[in-house]
Amino acid sequence: MKPVVPVLTALAVAGAFATVVHAQSPDRQIKYRQAALATMGYHFFGVLAPMAKGERPYDAAAAARSAKYVSEVSAMPWEGFGPGTDAGAPTKAKPEIWKDKARFDKLAQDMQIETAKLAKAAGTDLASLRTAVSATAKACTNCHDDFRAK
Amino acid sequence: MKPVVPVLTALAVAGAFATVVHAQSPDRQIKYRQAALATMGYHFFGVLAPMAKGERPYDAAAAARSAKYVSEVSAMPWEGFGPGTDAGAPTKAKPEIWKDKARFDKLAQDMQIETAKLAKAAGTDLASLRTAVSATAKACTNCHDDFRAK
Repeated sequence: MKPVVPVLTALAVAGAFATVVHAQSPDRQIKYRQAALATMGYHFFGVLAPMAKGERPYDAAAAARSAKYVSEVSAMPWEGFGPGTDAGAPTKAKPEIWKDKARFDKLAQDMQIETAKLAKAAGTDLASLRTAVSATAKACTNCHDDFRAK
Repeated sequence: MKPVVPVLTALAVAGAFATVVHAQSPDRQIKYRQAALATMGYHFFGVLAPMAKGERPYDAAAAARSAKYVSEVSAMPWEGFGPGTDAGAPTKAKPEIWKDKARFDKLAQDMQIETAKLAKAAGTDLASLRTAVSATAKACTNCHDDFRAK
């Protein structure tokens, strides 16, 4: 087994993130889920949606890459909605999430199904991208309507 | 070809993100790269490093999942370091990044090589996780030392 010291040293040197170590606090979970959703939002609303709307030229490689990222990150935010994370940092997440967690989780799963389709469709052609962007946007909305404050 | 209207409607309804549409501005790129790096940091410094240091019990499935996320997200931040993004929102990124972009890009690539190894090693056993966490932390530091403000 490797000695612990090199790990500790490397981590101390990388210490820019030292305050993040106890990542399971409500504050850290809230900021984490917001970071993951913002990462996804950048590619979805900043790259793919403008292409779908014709505000940006369709580029199959860029679309495929952004859609892959959206699909990958779409699995990540949910562990940031643990018990007690309705408060602890500024958040638009409504308390209803933890009152009906089963429905929230289902909508999160539905969204991941759409982002997987998006990842397959985005690089095919503009029409396929449009269909998948529209379906994914609806999946976002389905959850935001009830569970995200305006 | 699908009509544009349904896409526009769906996006208007999903409009929580409307302000993110022009994601290529320096402000948006800076916030994007910070979000991606924070997403990665949560799993690396909040889950994997504490396991490596023995502050948290080793859990092969949780380690494998977090390491997979770290590896996936490690490809994403770099398009947020486009020309002109040394300013536009608060950032610790040093101007040196754009003066020696080739070296910055090389260090970013080196980091992705380590996170790919981490993704393979994390679920094997604690010793393998430790080695990979240590190597990844060094890859973070190699870049932060010269290119990130304290």
